[in-house]
Amino acid sequence: MQEMRVMLLNGPNLNLLGEREPDIYGERSWDDIEAELRQVAAEMGLELECRQSNHEGDLVDWVQEARTGHVGLIINPGALTHYSYALQDALRALGIPSIEVHLTNPQAREGWRRKSVISPAVTGVIAGFGPLSYRLALLALKDLGNNTIK
Amino acid sequence: MQEMRVMLLNGPNLNLLGEREPDIYGERSWDDIEAELRQVAAEMGLELECRQSNHEGDLVDWVQEARTGHVGLIINPGALTHYSYALQDALRALGIPSIEVHLTNPQAREGWRRKSVISPAVTGVIAGFGPLSYRLALLALKDLGNNTIK
Amino acid sequence: MQEMRVMLLNGPNLNLLGEREPDIYGERSWDDIEAELRQVAAEMGLELECRQSNHEGDLVDWVQEARTGHVGLIINPGALTHYSYALQDALRALGIPSIEVHLTNPQAREGWRRKSVISPAVTGVIAGFGPLSYRLALLALKDLGNNTIK
Amino acid sequence: MQEMRVMLLNGPNLNLLGEREPDIYGERSWDDIEAELRQVAAEMGLELECRQSNHEGDLVDWVQEARTGHVGLIINPGALTHYSYALQDALRALGIPSIEVHLTNPQAREGWRRKSVISPAVTGVIAGFGPLSYRLALLALKDLGNNTIK
Amino acid sequence: MQEMRVMLLNGPNLNLLGEREPDIYGERSWDDIEAELRQVAAEMGLELECRQSNHEGDLVDWVQEARTGHVGLIINPGALTHYSYALQDALRALGIPSIEVHLTNPQAREGWRRKSVISPAVTGVIAGFGPLSYRLALLALKDLGNNTIK
Amino acid sequence: MQEMRVMLLNGPNLNLLGEREPDIYGERSWDDIEAELRQVAAEMGLELECRQSNHEGDLVDWVQEARTGHVGLIINPGALTHYSYALQDALRALGIPSIEVHLTNPQAREGWRRKSVISPAVTGVIAGFGPLSYRLALLALKDLGNNTIK
Amino acid sequence: MQEMRVMLLNGPNLNLLGEREPDIYGERSWDDIEAELRQVAAEMGLELECRQSNHEGDLVDWVQEARTGHVGLIINPGALTHYSYALQDALRALGIPSIEVHLTNPQAREGWRRKSVISPAVTGVIAGFGPLSYRLALLALKDLGNNTIK
Amino acid sequence: MQEMRVMLLNGPNLNLLGEREPDIYGERSWDDIEAELRQVAAEMGLELECRQSNHEGDLVDWVQEARTGHVGLIINPGALTHYSYALQDALRALGIPSIEVHLTNPQAREGWRRKSVISPAVTGVIAGFGPLSYRLALLALKDLGNNTIK
Amino acid sequence: MQEMRVMLLNGPNLNLLGEREPDIYGERSWDDIEAELRQVAAEMGLELECRQSNHEGDLVDWVQEARTGHVGLIINPGALTHYSYALQDALRALGIPSIEVHLTNPQAREGWRRKSVISPAVTGVIAGFGPLSYRLALLALKDLGNNTIK
Amino acid sequence: MQEMRVMLLNGPNLNLLGEREPDIYGERSWDDIEAELRQVAAEMGLELECRQSNHEGDLVDWVQEARTGHVGLIINPGALTHYSYALQDALRALGIPSIEVHLTNPQAREGWRRKSVISPAVTGVIAGFGPLSYRLALLALKDLGNNTIK
Amino acid sequence: MQEMRVMLLNGPNLNLLGEREPDIYGERSWDDIEAELRQVAAEMGLELECRQSNHEGDLVDWVQEARTGHVGLIINPGALTHYSYALQDALRALGIPSIEVHLTNPQAREGWRRKSVISPAVTGVIAGFGPLSYRLALLALKDLGNNTIK
Amino acid sequence: MQEMRVMLLNGPNLNLLGEREPDIYGERSWDDIEAELRQVAAEMGLELECRQSNHEGDLVDWVQEARTGHVGLIINPGALTHYSYALQDALRALGIPSIEVHLTNPQAREGWRRKSVISPAVTGVIAGFGPLSYRLALLALKDLGNNTIK
Repeated sequence: MQEMRVMLLNGPNLNLLGEREPDIYGERSWDDIEAELRQVAAEMGLELECRQSNHEGDLVDWVQEARTGHVGLIINPGALTHYSYALQDALRALGIPSIEVHLTNPQAREGWRRKSVISPAVTGVIAGFGPLSYRLALLALKDLGNNTIK
Repeated sequence: MQEMRVMLLNGPNLNLLGEREPDIYGERSWDDIEAELRQVAAEMGLELECRQSNHEGDLVDWVQEARTGHVGLIINPGALTHYSYALQDALRALGIPSIEVHLTNPQAREGWRRKSVISPAVTGVIAGFGPLSYRLALLALKDLGNNTIK
Repeated sequence: MQEMRVMLLNGPNLNLLGEREPDIYGERSWDDIEAELRQVAAEMGLELECRQSNHEGDLVDWVQEARTGHVGLIINPGALTHYSYALQDALRALGIPSIEVHLTNPQAREGWRRKSVISPAVTGVIAGFGPLSYRLALLALKDLGNNTIK
Repeated sequence: MQEMRVMLLNGPNLNLLGEREPDIYGERSWDDIEAELRQVAAEMGLELECRQSNHEGDLVDWVQEARTGHVGLIINPGALTHYSYALQDALRALGIPSIEVHLTNPQAREGWRRKSVISPAVTGVIAGFGPLSYRLALLALKDLGNNTIK
Repeated sequence: MQEMRVMLLNGPNLNLLGEREPDIYGERSWDDIEAELRQVAAEMGLELECRQSNHEGDLVDWVQEARTGHVGLIINPGALTHYSYALQDALRALGIPSIEVHLTNPQAREGWRRKSVISPAVTGVIAGFGPLSYRLALLALKDLGNNTIK
Repeated sequence: MQEMRVMLLNGPNLNLLGEREPDIYGERSWDDIEAELRQVAAEMGLELECRQSNHEGDLVDWVQEARTGHVGLIINPGALTHYSYALQDALRALGIPSIEVHLTNPQAREGWRRKSVISPAVTGVIAGFGPLSYRLALLALKDLGNNTIK
Repeated sequence: MQEMRVMLLNGPNLNLLGEREPDIYGERSWDDIEAELRQVAAEMGLELECRQSNHEGDLVDWVQEARTGHVGLIINPGALTHYSYALQDALRALGIPSIEVHLTNPQAREGWRRKSVISPAVTGVIAGFGPLSYRLALLALKDLGNNTIK
Repeated sequence: MQEMRVMLLNGPNLNLLGEREPDIYGERSWDDIEAELRQVAAEMGLELECRQSNHEGDLVDWVQEARTGHVGLIINPGALTHYSYALQDALRALGIPSIEVHLTNPQAREGWRRKSVISPAVTGVIAGFGPLSYRLALLALKDLGNNTIK
Repeated sequence: MQEMRVMLLNGPNLNLLGEREPDIYGERSWDDIEAELRQVAAEMGLELECRQSNHEGDLVDWVQEARTGHVGLIINPGALTHYSYALQDALRALGIPSIEVHLTNPQAREGWRRKSVISPAVTGVIAGFGPLSYRLALLALKDLGNNTIK
Repeated sequence: MQEMRVMLLNGPNLNLLGEREPDIYGERSWDDIEAELRQVAAEMGLELECRQSNHEGDLVDWVQEARTGHVGLIINPGALTHYSYALQDALRALGIPSIEVHLTNPQAREGWRRKSVISPAVTGVIAGFGPLSYRLALLALKDLGNNTIK
Repeated sequence: MQEMRVMLLNGPNLNLLGEREPDIYGERSWDDIEAELRQVAAEMGLELECRQSNHEGDLVDWVQEARTGHVGLIINPGALTHYSYALQDALRALGIPSIEVHLTNPQAREGWRRKSVISPAVTGVIAGFGPLSYRLALLALKDLGNNTIK
Repeated sequence: MQEMRVMLLNGPNLNLLGEREPDIYGERSWDDIEAELRQVAAEMGLELECRQSNHEGDLVDWVQEARTGHVGLIINPGALTHYSYALQDALRALGIPSIEVHLTNPQAREGWRRKSVISPAVTGVIAGFGPLSYRLALLALKDLGNNTIK
């Protein structure tokens, strides 16, 4: 069923997962994580559509695209978290539940990572659990969906 | 098994859930939510120990108490989120995974609710999903526990 | 009539009135002031219920308690004025008129006394008149009460 | 007796009371309020002298004028509250009790309304009670007068 | 028709146009500009009523006056742009479309010229086109008028 | 005549006009607005070249492209208004008149919308008139052109 | 000779000299000081024209008036020193030497008295010498005049 | 002799000494330290009265209690150092010498630990010497006592 | 030898070199500069790979690409210097020496050009020498390379 | 008479007068200016003792030296104006009148030149009159001397 | 034994002790204090080497000198406390225990005295006890020495 | 040829190179580095004149001295980088090319090391290459010299 699709967006440098600073971001590659997430999603009856880009504009395009034919959006905006007001605007216009996800806990890192310009426009935030953050986001979307049905 | 206990702490005014500003915090009472959480926990093989206080000191005492005989801590510090460095210190000394939980998305509210002095000391943060935030925290603790076992 | 009760709360150090820095806070003790206020209240047909605590948590408890069986709340939060967001939250949930009272004019004192985190949550503020501030607060509550009746 | 005169000054835009944003400032016109205040004053043996101007300079002139032949000053500086250091200087030189009055609670409104450059120079502040704020100010002046007599 | 009158207000020092810093503000005098604007207005069926003052209070008086018998207000507040909250309050109470106009582009000048306390209270802003800024404001008022009619 | 071409650029999310938050941005779609603007331009003897992108880089490319074969540039940078110094640099190198346009009045919205990093590099700013803002910009460009001819 | 006239302007509350806070501003009245200054000026061949107002607009009017028929301007802006950008603009357009004068040393007083928005637009500043500050300003104008003659 | 009693107060989390982050706070437990301090005090003829609480209110109560029957107060406010204005107020009213003590050097740690709201109200500060800080405080109190006697 | 390749990246608007503000950025075109740099590189046994883009995402892509098959990276981020945290993250994950280069000295220009979010992630910075800045960067890379060989 | 000596101190880089940025600081050398000042001083019966150093410590030494055998101090601290708290402390301990002098008007220059840490410790400030600033300072010292005699 | 030498450094204006503002800094001269300290040191088996300078550079030289042949450093940096990063750097490179000492409690004085750039580089801080501060520093050094031996 | 001399200045604590925090500043001593630099300079036909001081005043003296008989200046101001406006003023008056050099990359270190008050007054900046930074500065000076010849 097409309306059960969930878009998952990764921002700049998240394609380097497993290679980039593994002591901070962990050693699993994104392909590995995605495979697991797809399976989890499938068990929930959700189809997961994963994309990554280092271009802010691509992410804005995709958030707009998610407005039709999707039931939820999961986004890890990477460093764009801290300055992309264009993403914030796009998320404000989204119309479906959206969740901001971070592998690490930005509040426990450098000063500039503590401010998110994305958070004011999403339904919720999950941060600090490594790849598990994405899995929790899926569970949350599933549950939020149920609530709107009831 | 006593080591599978999880402590869940609620800070000031959370005993008013369902009564206080229901358009913001929702209409379910804490008793109602707690009952559901207990069941979810039980299914995971976890025993949930819930406490609430309007006293910062009580919360500090309880965080200290959680250092023995518990596998994880879930805390919604209420307004203490924004200034209780004493809680931060207590959490730093905790030694088991801890998760900061909020019913609403503080980033989407008044300015002073955007700064958390608790976040730098916890494992992760979950915010904005209403009572579901607590459920996700349980799932996260469960999973984090598995990781430490593996 | 029990519904004509007014709660009057004093925060940290206000039990020292008359002893602490008398050149700033005046020489009358709280007992003396309370006696006079009780009489004024009685003349208005109000019953005054006065409490003091150095514990932020007590004050939060009492503000919550005032939600039932009272027609108004007068609070001098002492130094908690400047950082107790927990009190602010409690006052937001109060549901009856509340008045923030100060013996001195905080705007004419040290910088940190100029910021009140309490003010955004109360009906009104009266500051700078010494013990008279409390009396004016009683008058204000009385009058506000009439308005709601009309 | 001329020495029992009280000056009441209203700053910019307060002549529009009842017309301007009635959901914020109330629906009563100033003429209506003034009539009631005059009566209250008369009962206290006070003569009330009310003036309004949109000109900062007029208000400074009048504060200076109040230095002779008046027992107290009540001032609602309107928007000048937030930047008129000239009014602050004039009030510092006043020599009789002065009370800053606001219809609304500026602390509960936009950021720039939270800073008063007037408050450091007055005897006390009363804010948030609508027209009742003026009445309380009269009571306060009366009482302060008694204190200086005793 | 009296209801087709537009008030145009110039703030402090704009009477010096053509004399003051001509490299910044241009070489045309205000009389010259006003003559042209009157003609443009006439062609639109609007009557232009131009006033200038170095007194903040005059401008507040006139904004209040514009509330009756005018269809729009054009205001170049000069340096008052940056600190006159009294003007902001007056504009908030205006009830007809208002346009803030600047000959130069304040964003391209000294730091203190970058903040406008007037903008939050007007319908729109036009800046940086020299005398043409006023002409565009007239066109905008005309057009806004049409929209309200349709 | 190729030299009478005007480039009109819209930044991120402006393709959603009519759909996104219609209470803020209005209900007309961009296609609708563009059709009207083209006609207005044609009447002025101008050819309008409209482009939109969610990519900052596209906008920078196009501003550079406008340096040849165009007589003016109109740009609504959307959320890039607030952080795209790259656009500012491109506009500084433009060599033809440029106008920053906003549908709403950013000064009357959230704090971060009040700072424009674009304004210092343009000829003028027009904000707050809805689609009319674009029309006024066309009129301004036409007129600025005349001035340089005279 | 009319061209040897010097304008001396005093801002808000300076008419109270000798009465207002004499421990700060001294005990001499302005009439007393003015008499002495006139004599000093006369000895230099200068005619002194002294005015005082509590109205910012008057001061702006007078600064504009000083543009013709005067050789220099001395101004003590009182509290307007700290926020009157309108005065700054007027002084920028003055065209003759101007000197900002203060009885006290503002740098040694409250924080808000440390910022002058007037200083950037005057030839020089003399502060902290009581009435002597004005005398030194006269000497400076005389001397600056000589320099321009040479 | 009862008047030679010294009160020593430890704030939140200091009961965890030896367990909490031993690389920062050292490995000695408080019991161990207290025993040594008692002996040092005894040699000076002082009786040491040690208390610890995680409740701000307890500390305020105890500071008030120290006003009678004690010759000095030593306080390590823990995290309350950085925001407890209530403690500051209590210390201002103390009337006997008081010393703020820290095990570590707060100036060499995280930003928020650099601001003490306690320091303005104490006689002196000793920080950075581990348990030795307390011993130095005892020596200082002893010596200050002698000074008041002389 | 492929491992001796150096990537040189130019950010937004640097393709306009020689045209854009020649008094600031000089009159030589990039083609001209690149030719010279290639020759200098060749003499050092280095192959220079030059790219330019106005798209932040392209630059992030290319920095990632430089991780394999290159011995060093030279980057002039243009205006992205001041806000592209995505570039910072990419540079952190680079693994080979990187040098931030500027034609001008940003510290001697407008305020917003003084903060670099790129500098914390590079090996070194060279700024202010015009095209020579690039040549020095080549020399530095060559030398750093030698050091790592030793 | 030795007690009629005045010390005149020049700070860093003032030895370059006439050479350094003559469009800002003027074309006269210090030797030239000093000769004139000596003569002016002699006519007043004052002996002028002039020293210059680029060393903060020398200036502090000399301010201390001026405490004996001098009737006044004139100091142009050069760039030390903006950060030398050591000079401020020395001036606080001076015990004779002191005047801070500047050739230019620091308020009209770069931001960092607008803050003086010296001003709070001197009797008065004279700035913006070129070499005449020193002459006025001599006149002021002479006059202040007379006042203390009367 | 040469290795038991302790260097004690006093910064700007501390040579004026007993003369400068005796109500703040006390009435004892440094010679007097030094004599007592020497004796105390001798009793501990320490040789005290005292130096004072108004020159930052001297203090940096001496801190470097203390790196050999000394067991500890005591420094009262005077006003340099607040801006001498050069001293901070020198202290960072010291290699032996160092103690920052103040006669008064800087936290209880003017704002600029509240920030120490020295504290992050020393072992500990002792402030507010008058000359006793130095004595406590000696005791602390002695004790710290013992600890390193154990 | 005397005009081919280059002055190289090192500020506070750089004499400790090789000893001080070698993990940050490297293990080579300055003597070692200087010998190599002299040789490099000689090969370019430049004579290198190296000086170091912990005294700001010495550095200002030497910068002034470099104004005659030198073709360039290289300066590593050490910690003075962050507050010595006196050095900035001296460099502004220099008249020959000057280069600010740092061994490390200050942007990647503590907050206070990120602001340079020196950079606005030099020709260029080279930072982060260890001793190589000095060598690159020599190359830059040589090349800049050629450019001025051409």
